[in-house]
Amino acid sequence: MFEIRAKDGLGRIGRLEIHGKVVETPALMPVINPKKAEIAPREMQEKFKAQMIITNAYIIYESSLREEAASRGIHELLDFDGVIATDSGSFQLMNYGNITVTNQEIVEFQQAIKSDISTFLDIPTTPNCTYEKALTDLEVTLERAREAQTLKKGFMNGTVQGGRFLDLRERACKELAAMDFEIHPLGAVVPFLLKYSFTPLLDIILTCKKHLPVERPVHLFGAGHPLLLPLAVLCGCDLFDSAAYILYAKGNRYLTPSGTRNLEDLLYFPCECPECSRTDPETVSGLSSQEKIAFLTRHNLYSTFGELRRIKQAIHEGSLWELVESRIRSHPNLLESYHVIKKYSDFIETSEPFTKRSGFFYTGAETKFRPVVARSASRIAPIPGETFEHPVFGKVPVSLSQTYPFHTDEVVCMAEKNMIRDITVYQFGVEAASLFEKAKVSYGRTGKVRHLHEDGCLLATLRPMDGLFVLTLEGARKLHSLVTAPRRRVVADEEAVPFVKDGKDLFSRFVLTMDEALRAYEEVLITDGDDILLGVGRLVLSPKEVQAFKRGVAVYCRRGADAIRDP
Amino acid sequence: MFEIRAKDGLGRIGRLEIHGKVVETPALMPVINPKKAEIAPREMQEKFKAQMIITNAYIIYESSLREEAASRGIHELLDFDGVIATDSGSFQLMNYGNITVTNQEIVEFQQAIKSDISTFLDIPTTPNCTYEKALTDLEVTLERAREAQTLKKGFMNGTVQGGRFLDLRERACKELAAMDFEIHPLGAVVPFLLKYSFTPLLDIILTCKKHLPVERPVHLFGAGHPLLLPLAVLCGCDLFDSAAYILYAKGNRYLTPSGTRNLEDLLYFPCECPECSRTDPETVSGLSSQEKIAFLTRHNLYSTFGELRRIKQAIHEGSLWELVESRIRSHPNLLESYHVIKKYSDFIETSEPFTKRSGFFYTGAETKFRPVVARSASRIAPIPGETFEHPVFGKVPVSLSQTYPFHTDEVVCMAEKNMIRDITVYQFGVEAASLFEKAKVSYGRTGKVRHLHEDGCLLATLRPMDGLFVLTLEGARKLHSLVTAPRRRVVADEEAVPFVKDGKDLFSRFVLTMDEALRAYEEVLITDGDDILLGVGRLVLSPKEVQAFKRGVAVYCRRGADAIRDP
Repeated sequence: MFEIRAKDGLGRIGRLEIHGKVVETPALMPVINPKKAEIAPREMQEKFKAQMIITNAYIIYESSLREEAASRGIHELLDFDGVIATDSGSFQLMNYGNITVTNQEIVEFQQAIKSDISTFLDIPTTPNCTYEKALTDLEVTLERAREAQTLKKGFMNGTVQGGRFLDLRERACKELAAMDFEIHPLGAVVPFLLKYSFTPLLDIILTCKKHLPVERPVHLFGAGHPLLLPLAVLCGCDLFDSAAYILYAKGNRYLTPSGTRNLEDLLYFPCECPECSRTDPETVSGLSSQEKIAFLTRHNLYSTFGELRRIKQAIHEGSLWELVESRIRSHPNLLESYHVIKKYSDFIETSEPFTKRSGFFYTGAETKFRPVVARSASRIAPIPGETFEHPVFGKVPVSLSQTYPFHTDEVVCMAEKNMIRDITVYQFGVEAASLFEKAKVSYGRTGKVRHLHEDGCLLATLRPMDGLFVLTLEGARKLHSLVTAPRRRVVADEEAVPFVKDGKDLFSRFVLTMDEALRAYEEVLITDGDDILLGVGRLVLSPKEVQAFKRGVAVYCRRGADAIRDP
Repeated sequence: MFEIRAKDGLGRIGRLEIHGKVVETPALMPVINPKKAEIAPREMQEKFKAQMIITNAYIIYESSLREEAASRGIHELLDFDGVIATDSGSFQLMNYGNITVTNQEIVEFQQAIKSDISTFLDIPTTPNCTYEKALTDLEVTLERAREAQTLKKGFMNGTVQGGRFLDLRERACKELAAMDFEIHPLGAVVPFLLKYSFTPLLDIILTCKKHLPVERPVHLFGAGHPLLLPLAVLCGCDLFDSAAYILYAKGNRYLTPSGTRNLEDLLYFPCECPECSRTDPETVSGLSSQEKIAFLTRHNLYSTFGELRRIKQAIHEGSLWELVESRIRSHPNLLESYHVIKKYSDFIETSEPFTKRSGFFYTGAETKFRPVVARSASRIAPIPGETFEHPVFGKVPVSLSQTYPFHTDEVVCMAEKNMIRDITVYQFGVEAASLFEKAKVSYGRTGKVRHLHEDGCLLATLRPMDGLFVLTLEGARKLHSLVTAPRRRVVADEEAVPFVKDGKDLFSRFVLTMDEALRAYEEVLITDGDDILLGVGRLVLSPKEVQAFKRGVAVYCRRGADAIRDP
């Protein structure tokens, strides 16, 4: 039901298929009040392109809508044919301390009204709660999770609780991971957001990400403020819901990616959305209270969806770290919280791609927190020779000055033979040092190394984008002969062999084993169980993801072994 | 013709009045091709709220439009009733090396077609030009400036040239300053922009700002990319023109505040503008070339105007430094260029307001470049007692922990008497230390110090926003008796005395002298020439601006001496 299309940090562009309906993640579900939606679900779909909304099943259950919802179904009731998730009343439980429905009743009700994703009645633990209370609450939550499993018919949220206690969050993740849930919301995080307590929040998110199954989307429950979105996505959150667009609007508050403003403090609208582009604060201040709310809800949604697109584009081009490092400067607590990244650096490194479409940009001291810094240091360690001083990576071989992430225009690499050998070692390891030893170099129009041939065969192209080699099948054969198994290999199941040989992409579920040192977006050899080369391609996922995901491509195959000789 | 409404750094929100038409600065003039405008000037005005456009008088002069323009006037020709500026053909001169019109002809032509702001035929000096050539070019430019003075009828641009040579730019500024020009464009800066050479560009801007009259708006000629706008405004640029919106569109390029993207590299539109909110890259890629350009020009304009509003709102709330320090992380050269700020720190400090509506936010190492850092260190030096460690300001008295720019929630100041005295010294100097010595303190609802009374009279209120005192007339009288002239004073001309005493604002042109150590947004005493207190208020401008500006308010008077006793 979930597959990954692109990655950056722990962030990912995913495709979530629920009951035949597709949601692209990271996604934002606007919260819809079933009794009175400020923006109708149909407008959410058509104007704001929302693929998914969330509503509260408990409110429906407790209201006069109960029977209508049960007979017509939630989609007809709300007039929305995308994905509808429902909450169980946990939020009311946290705020009012008591509700009049059982776990079984609300789970069965959600399934009766044909919610696409139902939620069991978890107990939200507030941040100031004692350890003992948090533990007791968690045990009830887990007990209800187990009960929900016996009732479960469709997709279900396995909400993670545990308050501010990381060991409880870890335990919750491990137990829920062993059960059959499709999505994991992280619960009771809103109080942290409201207090700008980003440090404990980040710690919770990253602890949970570490212990939840990588193939299940994570929903940061209640977090829909654009201020936090880039960092939350970088840390691996896939789903968000926003009641903020309407709640803030009702308080005359205006959302921006750099924080909240009071409408009365704005002399100019710091936004280019359709609402803000056609009017001005003076005009809006003269509107009726209802009209102001209508303006603000729409602006707040445009701003949130706009930031989400900015994040997706950043994942696509590989600039999510840069976006986050710019955005965290919007609030001191956000900047401060970023130090938490260091604690999880090894974990994040396994997910971090090896190369990106866009260059590595230094944005300040925090750039050194990126896990690629430690990784790159170890990969350049075996490379001797002249170095230059890089502001982030320290001493870097001059020969890598055109290669991601060291790229700099200030250093010119002259010793071309060294350059080819050093990039080879950086990319494929010391075993592969002699890969292009005898290759004949040809040059692009700008005079840079472009193609490497041997005996009339093209072995590889040096990609200008990132200064890394792209292998042909001939090049892959040579690499295969130099580097011993399992290194640089992804091993395909027998069933997939003819397809890969024919140049078809290798899907995750057909991967038997792989070199666990490989990282997403690396060049890889595809072999069968007997280490026969089947093809060469670009790895899409991290090793952990390849093993976990049932859907989606693991390796984009560039050339299969049965293909005609490379041009 | 120009007055300042709000300030931050060297940035300012200004009101520019030209031939009865008002332009609020910082302003962007879309460049209009007189032969074929991609977006009609009327749409610029109505949809994009452009108050000002710029077109090329040389193109009109050389085309079949010449006579029509002369007979109907440029406003009717273009169908635009806002301000129209015209360029002289200098751009063509830079690009093609030769044009067929004289300085006199093109100046007279611009005046004949009723251009609101005409431009003489300056010689643009490219960045790679030798010193000798730059000097010769500059001498021709200055000669033509002098010639233009003899022909001048309306508003005229005094364009600054000098290439990359700061001493030549300085000389140009000084000579042009002595002539009668209303606006100073900084010329030939586009080549720096195109090469992302922000360091020399910033050096040029700040050198020019230092040597140009502060009361004349500065136009960064040819710079309309949103990437540079926040930094350029912070450095004192008031006017921008954009041909980028259309030129980039024709090259399939998409402008964002964090840089340029190629349309084909976008999988998502990282923007919330009306164009980007209603479609997606896949749909746009299927459009005809003409439709793509129409989409991109409009997006590019929305994005640029949106960033300009974001900048204005930042000036209004006093967060321009924070915005800039976030934006400079969009490109390494921009981040690098920011070091130039340090060189001009003393100069910028004189313009930097004393307090702001929004809090001081630390955004990284570059925050220490802000001139307020050095200023604050000297102002806290005389304050003894317990300190806390501030990430930017170092050791700061605990008693100032609620006062701008030191404000922090982490330090609680308990010793209230010290606090009142220390804030007084910080704000009004050591002479004023005893100002509230005998005052009775009353508290706000949150338990914080709010009002100070003496003998039943309110002396001052501690403003929660910035933890600084706002004086009543009684408080001002006490301050006046403690602090010797000319300190803390703005001296009003005889003509203004009755108005100030009546509580009316004091305009710049009625200020005789003032304490030059005062900074914008400080509490000031208004006196007459005999040091009789006339009123108390909030200074709006820097001392240099008060002296230079012929229009606008210098001090917002809160209370005049003839007012009834403070409540």
